Amino acid sequence: MDTFINLDHGSGGLASQHLIGNLFLKYLTNPQLLDLEDCAVLGEHTGRIALSTDSYVVDPLFFPGGDIGCLAVHGTINDLAMRGAQPLALSLALIIEEGFALHSLEQVIASVAAASEAAGVAVVTGDTKVVPKGKADRLFINTSGIGLVSHRHDISGKKARPGDAVILSGTLADHGITIMSRQAGIEIDGDIASDTQPLHRLVDALLANDGGAVHVLRDPTRGGLATSLCEIAAASRVDMVIEEDLLPIKPAVSIACELIGLDPLYLANEGKCIVVCDRDRAGEMLQTMRRLPEGRDAALIGWVGDGRAEGRVSLTTRIGGSRLLEPLTGQPLPRIC
Amino acid sequence: MDTFINLDHGSGGLASQHLIGNLFLKYLTNPQLLDLEDCAVLGEHTGRIALSTDSYVVDPLFFPGGDIGCLAVHGTINDLAMRGAQPLALSLALIIEEGFALHSLEQVIASVAAASEAAGVAVVTGDTKVVPKGKADRLFINTSGIGLVSHRHDISGKKARPGDAVILSGTLADHGITIMSRQAGIEIDGDIASDTQPLHRLVDALLANDGGAVHVLRDPTRGGLATSLCEIAAASRVDMVIEEDLLPIKPAVSIACELIGLDPLYLANEGKCIVVCDRDRAGEMLQTMRRLPEGRDAALIGWVGDGRAEGRVSLTTRIGGSRLLEPLTGQPLPRIC
Repeated sequence: MDTFINLDHGSGGLASQHLIGNLFLKYLTNPQLLDLEDCAVLGEHTGRIALSTDSYVVDPLFFPGGDIGCLAVHGTINDLAMRGAQPLALSLALIIEEGFALHSLEQVIASVAAASEAAGVAVVTGDTKVVPKGKADRLFINTSGIGLVSHRHDISGKKARPGDAVILSGTLADHGITIMSRQAGIEIDGDIASDTQPLHRLVDALLANDGGAVHVLRDPTRGGLATSLCEIAAASRVDMVIEEDLLPIKPAVSIACELIGLDPLYLANEGKCIVVCDRDRAGEMLQTMRRLPEGRDAALIGWVGDGRAEGRVSLTTRIGGSRLLEPLTGQPLPRIC
Repeated sequence: MDTFINLDHGSGGLASQHLIGNLFLKYLTNPQLLDLEDCAVLGEHTGRIALSTDSYVVDPLFFPGGDIGCLAVHGTINDLAMRGAQPLALSLALIIEEGFALHSLEQVIASVAAASEAAGVAVVTGDTKVVPKGKADRLFINTSGIGLVSHRHDISGKKARPGDAVILSGTLADHGITIMSRQAGIEIDGDIASDTQPLHRLVDALLANDGGAVHVLRDPTRGGLATSLCEIAAASRVDMVIEEDLLPIKPAVSIACELIGLDPLYLANEGKCIVVCDRDRAGEMLQTMRRLPEGRDAALIGWVGDGRAEGRVSLTTRIGGSRLLEPLTGQPLPRIC
């Protein structure tokens, strides 16, 4: 067996088939994949179909709390969940650089498989391309996903209403600070790891009996919480006020952010969501979230202002001042996800 | 406006939004995209859902007959069509190298939009990542697609039956020889261009009243006709005999293949399909295909042997000999699609 990926592995011929048979199908065991068709055909479904796609170019490939494989699975599941969709199936497309170590690829595929199994969302189809050495950086992954949305739900960034409560499902900036500290080569003490995790079960729990109380769901990935809130405020034409004192953040993350000079409000999260909902149902929603491990640190962080407005998001600081939050322009470091 | 892609364009912040707003949404005008959600929610559908994914790393990005943009649209539409699925919607995910010229990106997006519009299959969601200079080669594209399969159809590579006819929808090796001659820097006279085109309408016409006569559809992309036939023969446990004299190939392509020393049977096609169907319906299927521009050169090229067998594909040569066709092992040159 080869030790490194070579160009033949992307030829579509026998070497590709061996890679798929010996490595991918060792971990990914969905019967659709075993058929080796270029397209999966699922069972009969009725409903509004959701489609989402994301490419992952994260550097490093392996980091505390996860790797590019589980990140890619969770990210697409979460994008589906943020529209209220029940994830049905995932696709997995790899672009691999010639010379990439097969044992690293195996680690990633095992992680994809474990994440997919834990989430109960199968990888049903895939694609593998290999490019010559120097033409890509080790491994890029695209996951796309389909889901079904119940008629009861119409979740979108445009639906925030005056007076709504704003909830965050857990602590801030864990993924961003983990990746950035690694990229910058900074060793940080304490409990710092990516928060990459799937949120579809949390969303399920929230939407099970919400009676339309949940208006917006959004995972604050690239651009962080501040950028996501600005997008929601602009799309819904409302203002928002967030209280710094209410933001859940791990002490180690807070210290690391100060140390590196980064604002946790702009750092990526990969297992958290913003929930904008009816104010009088907020307590109940918080309880529902806190009963699940992925929502145990959920907190009310602010409110949507009364009346229509211009899409401004302001932060009430600890010392009682007010700071206007602008969307992120550029990223301090690339390849966060 | 910037002239080149920079890392901020992939930040998920304002620069990303400007790129999307000023460039992508100038060409891609589906209302789903305008919402700027991370996930599209389509209308109500009932049926068996098909999901397919493909990444495109073709080099050069622009070539006679097409470019990476329309290739990506056609490729995923065709993968859906090869299972008998009606394509519903596409996703578009870009990985862009820092420094890539915005005018080239614009050309690609315009091509994606034109191909999507011509095929009647909308791009409904997308993703953009930017990696630092040297970490990718200009532009990689992933398209994923969803479709619906009618209950009447059960098309797969496993369904070839003893005695079936084998049809090819048009000429051989056009895409492969076009890309390879460019990569090798060889100037070739004559009418050589990629055959990239969508095949879903041809498949629709074939399946409209086939009464189950069509058993296998397969687009012979990477690995070419020979590899695809070997895969079908192995999956269906049948033997096949193909006649060299019956293979449609453009004279210029044939000459170029001899010149470069490549076997057209192993070169990629990006707008052709193999149809394996009931022998007594083959004439009718050929007529149906030839009535459409994408099937005007369709030809019967061989037969499935009588009885179950070991998956061998043999070619009856022009001089009456017989040559066993093996699946491709590696690719002579990478990045064909």
